Amino acid sequence: MTTEQVAKKVVELTKKQAWHEAVDQLYAKDVVSVEAQGMGGQSPEKRGIEAIRGKADWWVATMEVHNFKVSGPFVAHDRFVVQYDVDVTDKNSKQRFQMSEVGVYTVKDGKIVREEFLPAVGT
Amino acid sequence: MTTEQVAKKVVELTKKQAWHEAVDQLYAKDVVSVEAQGMGGQSPEKRGIEAIRGKADWWVATMEVHNFKVSGPFVAHDRFVVQYDVDVTDKNSKQRFQMSEVGVYTVKDGKIVREEFLPAVGT
Repeated sequence: MTTEQVAKKVVELTKKQAWHEAVDQLYAKDVVSVEAQGMGGQSPEKRGIEAIRGKADWWVATMEVHNFKVSGPFVAHDRFVVQYDVDVTDKNSKQRFQMSEVGVYTVKDGKIVREEFLPAVGT
Repeated sequence: MTTEQVAKKVVELTKKQAWHEAVDQLYAKDVVSVEAQGMGGQSPEKRGIEAIRGKADWWVATMEVHNFKVSGPFVAHDRFVVQYDVDVTDKNSKQRFQMSEVGVYTVKDGKIVREEFLPAVGT
């Protein structure tokens, strides 16, 4: 798949919140995933498709999703960007929160080899 | 400046369309700038702050701006993303067009060392 095809597939699957399908179809085995901050003192950087699958498991188990808006993709060369606007309740803390972030993805040989998540910052 | 400070300054200056101020204050001398496509058969990749200044000169000389919306920034680690929604008329061709793209910026030692522009792709 080209970068644009991978990008469109990410948008299609995340709109359906089909996280595990996205991981299985689109991610390289040795993918690197970088969050803005690590959770609970963990590193913000995870390596390998099993770690990504674990993040998907955690998200589905933890979050009650009220609204999940996906915008984009924006595509050039081996890179694409997707924006996520999320309204969720953490099932553990019962806290509801809204969050906007972008994912910056790098594609190699038709698979995602790197993803970085950047939260919106107030100006 | 931190990545977040540089990102906020980019948003502040591009909202004012203060392109030359942005170049002078925020860009590293050896910055690399990557467009989705090179113009007129040129490489999509430009190197050096003089090339960026040239792009700013070209933009100001060529485009009549009807609307210029800046969204973001999104920030994590050494990276930030800004979205631009533009409504302009090319003064040469008289063609008016709308364009959405994101800039993905990399910061080192308080200066922008790389920028990539990714246009929106229809899904």
